[in-house]
Amino acid sequence: MTSKQAFVDFFPQLVDDLIGDLETLNAQPETKAWVRRAVEYNVNGGKMNRGLSVVDALAVLRQQQTGQASPLSAEDTKRATILGWCIELLQAFFLISDDIMDSSVTRRGQPCWYRQSEVGMIAINDAFIIEMMIYRILKRYFRQDSFYVDLVELVQDVTFKTEMGQNLDLITAPEDDVDLTRFSMAKYWYIVRYKTAYYSFYLPVAMALMLAGVTDAKAFQQAEDILLTLGEYFQAQDDYLDCFGAPETIGKIGTDIEDNKCSWLINQALLLGSKEQVDRLYAHYGKRQPQNVEAVKAVYRELDLAGVFTKYETESYQAIAKKIDASDNNLVPHKIFYDFMHKIYKRTK
Amino acid sequence: MTSKQAFVDFFPQLVDDLIGDLETLNAQPETKAWVRRAVEYNVNGGKMNRGLSVVDALAVLRQQQTGQASPLSAEDTKRATILGWCIELLQAFFLISDDIMDSSVTRRGQPCWYRQSEVGMIAINDAFIIEMMIYRILKRYFRQDSFYVDLVELVQDVTFKTEMGQNLDLITAPEDDVDLTRFSMAKYWYIVRYKTAYYSFYLPVAMALMLAGVTDAKAFQQAEDILLTLGEYFQAQDDYLDCFGAPETIGKIGTDIEDNKCSWLINQALLLGSKEQVDRLYAHYGKRQPQNVEAVKAVYRELDLAGVFTKYETESYQAIAKKIDASDNNLVPHKIFYDFMHKIYKRTK
Repeated sequence: MTSKQAFVDFFPQLVDDLIGDLETLNAQPETKAWVRRAVEYNVNGGKMNRGLSVVDALAVLRQQQTGQASPLSAEDTKRATILGWCIELLQAFFLISDDIMDSSVTRRGQPCWYRQSEVGMIAINDAFIIEMMIYRILKRYFRQDSFYVDLVELVQDVTFKTEMGQNLDLITAPEDDVDLTRFSMAKYWYIVRYKTAYYSFYLPVAMALMLAGVTDAKAFQQAEDILLTLGEYFQAQDDYLDCFGAPETIGKIGTDIEDNKCSWLINQALLLGSKEQVDRLYAHYGKRQPQNVEAVKAVYRELDLAGVFTKYETESYQAIAKKIDASDNNLVPHKIFYDFMHKIYKRTK
Repeated sequence: MTSKQAFVDFFPQLVDDLIGDLETLNAQPETKAWVRRAVEYNVNGGKMNRGLSVVDALAVLRQQQTGQASPLSAEDTKRATILGWCIELLQAFFLISDDIMDSSVTRRGQPCWYRQSEVGMIAINDAFIIEMMIYRILKRYFRQDSFYVDLVELVQDVTFKTEMGQNLDLITAPEDDVDLTRFSMAKYWYIVRYKTAYYSFYLPVAMALMLAGVTDAKAFQQAEDILLTLGEYFQAQDDYLDCFGAPETIGKIGTDIEDNKCSWLINQALLLGSKEQVDRLYAHYGKRQPQNVEAVKAVYRELDLAGVFTKYETESYQAIAKKIDASDNNLVPHKIFYDFMHKIYKRTK
């Protein structure tokens, strides 16, 4: 059985735990049925990369500690799986509300939760419930652990950082109020780091470090430093693929230009373009007509942003590899970082 | 200086603390300005009864402990004030999102936050930020206290309970899908207890108990039992006043009937009414025309719900007084409960 299959197979027990917990609050049958549906609809069905990373990172840490390439113990697997699902719950909390804030239509190939006719804005309260379920799971399974308080504060801290990044993104690039003077590479990197990299890259490894009994603050700092840089590279890739990736490979037709997204490409174009090119970007970005999109893409081509990205990609790989190699392998095994790196470097989807 | 004035005067320092905290996350100037506005707009300006209750309850506890009716120490006042403001932050988190879910127009005499043209659905993320600020304050001021973990879990638990009550309310009485077969007194009391009583009545006293160094679980249970009953009475009153109170006294024109609210009155009417009267309620409840509202009020009058309420009010007072007197004054001073009671008994607004 692959580690992904084992991870997925735990989901029904997670749901039973969560709904069983509602019974301790005398929840009415209607609420239990509603919450079960909200959890099954929103928490399941993603790629689960974030959740799985907790299990994978713990396996590397245990191998280093024991000196043996043996599989994780059943107990380790279970605890890492539970924390992995906590990240998936956090992700569901963010996505339910992001979809409302972005007026999105579909998510993971089905209508967004708030688009279900009987749900609507009740989805906001569902997002709250799913967020709070994380802390109920942490209490249920980790209350006795010495790292319990640090774990709770880690999740709170990462949640807050994600919300900070989300705020800057929302006020910099609102879909219905295009103003490219607000954009800059500095803001772009802040948004990426806070909105995406902390919870997607740092959080799973920080959780695995706690499970492995690591308490040295330097280990966490080292992981944070490297994984945020990796997260930045990952998001820049995502933005590149939105425009230059093959729709049949990435599984969607990118709409970052139409949606006024504060992406790596537009920020590069604003930085590298001549006055005349920047004027064209101002005239056409964030508009829905195909000729507007084409005009923006023309500037991207004139500036050879595909080539600029390839150069950035290579330099970024070298910079990250240098950071990893300069870090202390005894604090955090390099293999954790390289495993991440090899999953995403030069990806096409 | 009244305790309310001192409480209000702390607000600017709270805001400075919160915005200063954002600087530790390198928040951009735009985000700092935005969050400051969101906090000032939404956290300030309420009646602050919940927040003040922490200070008042701690004063009673200290008087009992010292045997002297002396004022609270500066340190006690500050700590109770900070926790009181945490409840006001929690309240702001709930109200921002409730207003979106209820499509409300005004709140505390000004447009709802999400109705500001540049805010809209960004308000959802603002609510998240304000919620998470509570835990950042708890960490900043109480990390060293022995009750820190209990305090964090208390706030999480009460938040989750409020969300459970909110869920049942939303799915029982959606404004645009009237179905009185979903209503019942049992559901009514569940909604009141979970959505309102826990955070408005139990939470402030539980916080004061922690500040006073109380650790006996029985004290918390006793407070919970009595304060939830008080909270139930308070909400029934609120519902009564919505229909039978004088608009010039309560400061608004009640619209519970139009809004399909699951209120004490409609549930009593469904319970006490004849088949014919219930049919009339089914035909007219949750509709916006004055003749519909009048038809519902006619049933309320025929059943003498004002008289039924007065009887309930007297019985409720006696039952609560009996509970208080039967409880252990050494665990939680009766004065805490009677102070609450005397603030709300037979109120007209």
